[in-house]
Amino acid sequence: MKRILKAAILGATGLVGIEYARMLSEHPYIKPAYLAGKNSVGRPYGEIVRWQTVGQVPKEVRDMEVKPTDPKLMDDVDIIFSPLPQGAAGPVEEQFAKLGFPVISNSPDHRFDPDVPLLIPEVNPHTVSLIDEQKKRRDWKGFIVTTPLCTAQGAAIPLSPIYMNFKMNGAYITTIQSLSGAGYPGIPSLDIVDNILPLGDAYDAKTIKEVTRILGEVKRNIGEPSMQEVSLAATTHRIATIHGHYEVSYVTFKEDTEVSKVREVLDNFRGEPQDLKLPTAPEKPIITMNEDNRPQVYFDRWAGNPPGMSIVVGRLKQINNRTIRMVSLIHNTIRGAAGGGILSAELLKEKGYIE
Amino acid sequence: MKRILKAAILGATGLVGIEYARMLSEHPYIKPAYLAGKNSVGRPYGEIVRWQTVGQVPKEVRDMEVKPTDPKLMDDVDIIFSPLPQGAAGPVEEQFAKLGFPVISNSPDHRFDPDVPLLIPEVNPHTVSLIDEQKKRRDWKGFIVTTPLCTAQGAAIPLSPIYMNFKMNGAYITTIQSLSGAGYPGIPSLDIVDNILPLGDAYDAKTIKEVTRILGEVKRNIGEPSMQEVSLAATTHRIATIHGHYEVSYVTFKEDTEVSKVREVLDNFRGEPQDLKLPTAPEKPIITMNEDNRPQVYFDRWAGNPPGMSIVVGRLKQINNRTIRMVSLIHNTIRGAAGGGILSAELLKEKGYIE
Amino acid sequence: MKRILKAAILGATGLVGIEYARMLSEHPYIKPAYLAGKNSVGRPYGEIVRWQTVGQVPKEVRDMEVKPTDPKLMDDVDIIFSPLPQGAAGPVEEQFAKLGFPVISNSPDHRFDPDVPLLIPEVNPHTVSLIDEQKKRRDWKGFIVTTPLCTAQGAAIPLSPIYMNFKMNGAYITTIQSLSGAGYPGIPSLDIVDNILPLGDAYDAKTIKEVTRILGEVKRNIGEPSMQEVSLAATTHRIATIHGHYEVSYVTFKEDTEVSKVREVLDNFRGEPQDLKLPTAPEKPIITMNEDNRPQVYFDRWAGNPPGMSIVVGRLKQINNRTIRMVSLIHNTIRGAAGGGILSAELLKEKGYIE
Amino acid sequence: MKRILKAAILGATGLVGIEYARMLSEHPYIKPAYLAGKNSVGRPYGEIVRWQTVGQVPKEVRDMEVKPTDPKLMDDVDIIFSPLPQGAAGPVEEQFAKLGFPVISNSPDHRFDPDVPLLIPEVNPHTVSLIDEQKKRRDWKGFIVTTPLCTAQGAAIPLSPIYMNFKMNGAYITTIQSLSGAGYPGIPSLDIVDNILPLGDAYDAKTIKEVTRILGEVKRNIGEPSMQEVSLAATTHRIATIHGHYEVSYVTFKEDTEVSKVREVLDNFRGEPQDLKLPTAPEKPIITMNEDNRPQVYFDRWAGNPPGMSIVVGRLKQINNRTIRMVSLIHNTIRGAAGGGILSAELLKEKGYIE
Ligand SMILES: NC(=O)c1ccc[n+]([C@@H]2O[C@H](COP(=O)([O-])OP(=O)(O)OC[C@H]3O[C@@H](n4cnc5c(N)ncnc54)[C@H](OP(=O)(O)O)[C@@H]3O)[C@@H](O)[C@H]2O)c1
Ligand SMILES: NC(=O)c1ccc[n+]([C@@H]2O[C@H](COP(=O)([O-])OP(=O)(O)OC[C@H]3O[C@@H](n4cnc5c(N)ncnc54)[C@H](OP(=O)(O)O)[C@@H]3O)[C@@H](O)[C@H]2O)c1
Ligand SMILES: NC(=O)c1ccc[n+]([C@@H]2O[C@H](COP(=O)([O-])OP(=O)(O)OC[C@H]3O[C@@H](n4cnc5c(N)ncnc54)[C@H](OP(=O)(O)O)[C@@H]3O)[C@@H](O)[C@H]2O)c1
Ligand SMILES: NC(=O)c1ccc[n+]([C@@H]2O[C@H](COP(=O)([O-])OP(=O)(O)OC[C@H]3O[C@@H](n4cnc5c(N)ncnc54)[C@H](OP(=O)(O)O)[C@@H]3O)[C@@H](O)[C@H]2O)c1
Repeated sequence: MKRILKAAILGATGLVGIEYARMLSEHPYIKPAYLAGKNSVGRPYGEIVRWQTVGQVPKEVRDMEVKPTDPKLMDDVDIIFSPLPQGAAGPVEEQFAKLGFPVISNSPDHRFDPDVPLLIPEVNPHTVSLIDEQKKRRDWKGFIVTTPLCTAQGAAIPLSPIYMNFKMNGAYITTIQSLSGAGYPGIPSLDIVDNILPLGDAYDAKTIKEVTRILGEVKRNIGEPSMQEVSLAATTHRIATIHGHYEVSYVTFKEDTEVSKVREVLDNFRGEPQDLKLPTAPEKPIITMNEDNRPQVYFDRWAGNPPGMSIVVGRLKQINNRTIRMVSLIHNTIRGAAGGGILSAELLKEKGYIE
Repeated sequence: MKRILKAAILGATGLVGIEYARMLSEHPYIKPAYLAGKNSVGRPYGEIVRWQTVGQVPKEVRDMEVKPTDPKLMDDVDIIFSPLPQGAAGPVEEQFAKLGFPVISNSPDHRFDPDVPLLIPEVNPHTVSLIDEQKKRRDWKGFIVTTPLCTAQGAAIPLSPIYMNFKMNGAYITTIQSLSGAGYPGIPSLDIVDNILPLGDAYDAKTIKEVTRILGEVKRNIGEPSMQEVSLAATTHRIATIHGHYEVSYVTFKEDTEVSKVREVLDNFRGEPQDLKLPTAPEKPIITMNEDNRPQVYFDRWAGNPPGMSIVVGRLKQINNRTIRMVSLIHNTIRGAAGGGILSAELLKEKGYIE
Repeated sequence: MKRILKAAILGATGLVGIEYARMLSEHPYIKPAYLAGKNSVGRPYGEIVRWQTVGQVPKEVRDMEVKPTDPKLMDDVDIIFSPLPQGAAGPVEEQFAKLGFPVISNSPDHRFDPDVPLLIPEVNPHTVSLIDEQKKRRDWKGFIVTTPLCTAQGAAIPLSPIYMNFKMNGAYITTIQSLSGAGYPGIPSLDIVDNILPLGDAYDAKTIKEVTRILGEVKRNIGEPSMQEVSLAATTHRIATIHGHYEVSYVTFKEDTEVSKVREVLDNFRGEPQDLKLPTAPEKPIITMNEDNRPQVYFDRWAGNPPGMSIVVGRLKQINNRTIRMVSLIHNTIRGAAGGGILSAELLKEKGYIE
Repeated sequence: MKRILKAAILGATGLVGIEYARMLSEHPYIKPAYLAGKNSVGRPYGEIVRWQTVGQVPKEVRDMEVKPTDPKLMDDVDIIFSPLPQGAAGPVEEQFAKLGFPVISNSPDHRFDPDVPLLIPEVNPHTVSLIDEQKKRRDWKGFIVTTPLCTAQGAAIPLSPIYMNFKMNGAYITTIQSLSGAGYPGIPSLDIVDNILPLGDAYDAKTIKEVTRILGEVKRNIGEPSMQEVSLAATTHRIATIHGHYEVSYVTFKEDTEVSKVREVLDNFRGEPQDLKLPTAPEKPIITMNEDNRPQVYFDRWAGNPPGMSIVVGRLKQINNRTIRMVSLIHNTIRGAAGGGILSAELLKEKGYIE
């Protein structure tokens, strides 16, 4: 039997934090032991938290007091989950890593440090070896591992086996994303009722940048590979859905490629988490659907087991000999953040980086 | 001064019908003279109509009684606008055309008859000459002209000058469409709150079929050209916006093509309606925007003058040497239906098909 | 240990039917054994059902085939849950009751038969004795028990202990109800985006009629008591929330009444289901909240255990000496339908009406 | 012919500011001459403004530069409209009034100064005489007049003729308000999708406080009358409608009161603005509807002429001998703010307070 790991959730009251709290309350060997916040410090978690997810606040965390983000108070903590806002996250995470904590971050601040893994456990598990370099170079006892932008994961997870197995040329992506992806308070309601909000050039660009790096690593490379050979584009939007990022991709190839083969590859995709039977690994990281009106955000974002850990892919269609169309749906705060973070922790434990 | 033309609006209480009623109430020489319906027959228009548009029911039509769709009652009518539902429209339109009425239809029933124009006045005005063939072949005194599917127009209008001026290879389109495009009652509310509704293969296919025909006609061809050389794809959706279809297109070319040139061509696009100064012709059929968060459905669907008659194009971006990205927004019930119908009538009058 | 009861769910694919399927899949002694439908007959439940609730279709029912609503196929069924549409329900339910089945109906068709209980187990459990009269009078081996309109329950459950304990004079109710209350397809989306839909005189009236009868029975009466002494009014609306009916009540009294006393009575309210520790009985049928921005539909509709079985009451306030204000929130498809039905079955079993 | 008055709109880019800009662009004798803002200073109005209303930015204001809120730059301005945020408004308005400007404020800051009118031109026009006292007491050349909270107006306008004509005892109000009432950015989207947001005790209380004062003044009193004899209560909410506050009131009386008489009084209600034929006065300040599903926010908020200046009242019903039910709908940014402000200016001009 595994030793129980005590976890601190920084930003525990945030939209990602609540999924950590919910999932860890049921985890076999990682327990929520410390809930950190900012404005909600000193308040009972169950009273202060906006529980924008399924069910009710679990009894495991309901009566815990929200505490400050202070490593001195976390002596007995084994692992830090850090879904902190951009800007706030960076220095805090460094501080923890320096002190010896393993830090799993969902924030963008360290995602492009050359010695920090940008980890999707099924896709680029070999990049965890960057941790050794990171610790040495920075003379840290702990380390930082990051998970990618939710939007980038929604594209990168299905594109990875495609890129691995076929001569992919590019992907033209259009996203329709949910409100929870922007945190709370996030998007003003008057921007979204009877409207579509384009997320703009910067958001498009960071999506592409992350997908590019991840695809570059799929073929066992490490760091940020050049990937000049693949042409990616993204046009990103938010609408009034609560959870779930929906992404339409037209994928082009350098040679004739049959959609039935692509579907097969997606269906059969498995990674180390499945081989290792990690507790948070869904049986199938990618679930394909055949109905021509699926996936639908409301009905399919909770797909997989644990719920929300599988990406749903549908609308697969041969556009022409060298182009296929595919739609993917990711639960942004689960697979795209907290669930991905917990799965990363499980992988790191399995590989001996967390003890 | 032009003779006043008396118009009948079939389906006058529908989502397209109300835009006809609104726009014709202010038209310089076409007057709403007969409002036809089905379930609302016998009721005062202003009382029965669901006015799902701006302003209040105009006084010109408020007290008119809704009448049956019966040509015998329309002796003094000069022109028939027919936004009737698919299936119901076809036979009714034939009946009117046979009796000598000019019929402008927004319904799909006759769109692919080989002798019926599928008309966008700025794009394929020369196809009105099909009317001569139609009248001869069918031995009709009147005729039918159709306007394309709103979704197809949203893509075809900006793609037309692009196809005309550059060696276009294909377009990969993703649409995010409004509820009013489905008529009333249309989409159940439980399909759309916190959800995205994929419209499915059939809707994707008809969009492509219509865009293909229109592009084929851009270069002065008539009928349904083959267009094998261009690869089009569409993935269509509905969300909880009320009016306005938003479409993201990745357009590919056979040779290097600069986005700045494409923008110029879009900006300068004008057609016969502009040359002829038709009253419902917007100064610019296409308005381009530069802000990276525009167009937005709520703010830009009413663009142009008359409002809703211009397509707004934005997010123009060079993806790679041979690919550009473009977003277009069309007011589906105005430019995509009633406004397009009225502009068609104006063109037909100018060309002598309506007297 | 209790004998396992086999249940048929009529209308199993409907919005209430899915909650029966979900809750019975986890029930200690009532099992979903037969799923009946109409248009979906012959299809695997997990494929055809619109799962407009939490989680995914339970494995207990996922692969069951939807069957016709035919008693001949239900030989081994012990209990019928009938969330059928108004009109369709009535004759079907009679047919089953005549054949000896216990029928628990959520439909309105038999709610006002003088020998049919309109049952809220915590409120008027003594009315189950009407069953004896019903069976005798109709010479049936089985019987029908109904649950009240969801909207009526949202008001009647908290008003019952108030009426029981204080000299209540009347209640002026305004409801803001969810889409799922209208079934599927239900409300057209264009009626509800950027709008409030008044439900009209008939809906207001039936709400009042049911609340009146239930309050009349609170004081141990049976049948439809006159209740002339209490003045009730309701103004009912639907908005674009998915589940949860929210109701604001101004309650007036014949003598000075302190809100603190009212709160106490609500907090302490328990009924037979709690005494009998029925499996679907929430610990507290009414949960009161103190925050001045609660209850909120999104966060509080799942209150209680089983989730959705408690009514949440908040915004309690003394308006004047003889008037208090109260807000109640009911999960319409759970406490207001399927959950109420299952709790009723448990009570009937405990009282020997189901064996 | 009237002299043209030059108006400055403070907060011109806000949700109320845009209605001032729109309505004044068409006003016969008040012209928008100065558009003031804060963050948008220096930008062309048409570029920076979020035009969350009908139509497009009028050409009269489109190219005007947004300027600072600085009286020194407004030498030639005759009248100040001040829809500034609470807190920011107070000192700015005093500064302008001291310098001799007539200030019409929509903000709450001075609403309860004892010498400042809280003006609804049809309801308490006599309170403008407070201006004389105000100028004298404060030794100001200019003055401040305020318009009430939009929510308070939605109740107070129909209650005024009722209170004037019948022995009213109290009113129990439940509001369902729109997003625009909270300004921009206002309500976070995650608070409102699939939710109802209670506005809380403070909002309820200020609504009642303002309605109470206005009703107190209806019978020709001035200042803040005691009104102990009338019992008012409000329960206020926001939902995802864009414009339009919908309010359900149960009105109680000290003696038997017939709803038909109440309807008559509401229908016939006129005030000084109608007698004086002020340009922004709607023909009927209150429009009553009979259909049992009206008013509806989407369809009726633009009622009256100018659009949005009439309050729509419907669902009138006799609850018992001494209680009637009534629903009112007010366009919060028009009648409830900018339109009310312009109508106030017109009245003040007519009465010689503005020259
Ligand atoms: N939302 C998503 O779908 C998603 C997906 C992938 C990655 N991410 C990333 O995850 C991070 C969190 O996102 P979110 O959506 O959960 O945000 P959020 O809802 O805004 O939550 C922010 C959390 O951080 C805490 N916090 C804020 N400032 C802090 C500071 N200076 N020091 C310590 N704690 C602070 C807040 O605590 P108090 O409430 O106590 O103030 C709150 O718990 C972001 O970096 C985001 O980019 C989000
Ligand atoms: N909505 C769009 O954006 C759009 C865009 C382009 C084209 N179109 C096409 O325009 C047509 C109308 O669409 P819509 O959205 O306006 O539909 P809609 O809102 O459903 O209105 C249908 C209208 O047709 C009348 N009608 C229905 N059945 C009829 C029959 N058998 N005989 C005579 N009248 C009948 C109805 O009258 P009563 O109300 O009196 O029953 C109503 O006025 C469709 O063919 C659609 O494909 C629509
Ligand atoms: N929704 C609520 O909140 C609520 C609350 C309290 C009470 N109720 C009552 O519960 C009942 C069901 O409501 P709902 O919202 O679940 O409705 P719904 O979503 O419209 O579902 C109706 C169900 O009934 C089946 N059905 C329809 N017509 C039938 C027929 N003639 N014979 C047999 N089966 C038929 C349908 O099967 P197929 O899908 O196979 O066609 C479907 O399973 C109604 O009487 C309603 O008044 C509802
Ligand atoms: N919205 C309604 O329905 C309604 C109804 C009745 C009364 N009111 C009252 O009207 C006022 C305005 O409401 P709103 O909804 O229009 O608000 P809003 O949309 O938030 O607009 C605020 C406006 O004030 C400007 N502003 C903000 N801070 C300022 C400062 N310190 N100095 C100068 N200008 C400043 C802003 O300019 P920049 O954009 O340039 O920063 C913007 O133009 C509030 O007092 C509100 O209570 C509103």
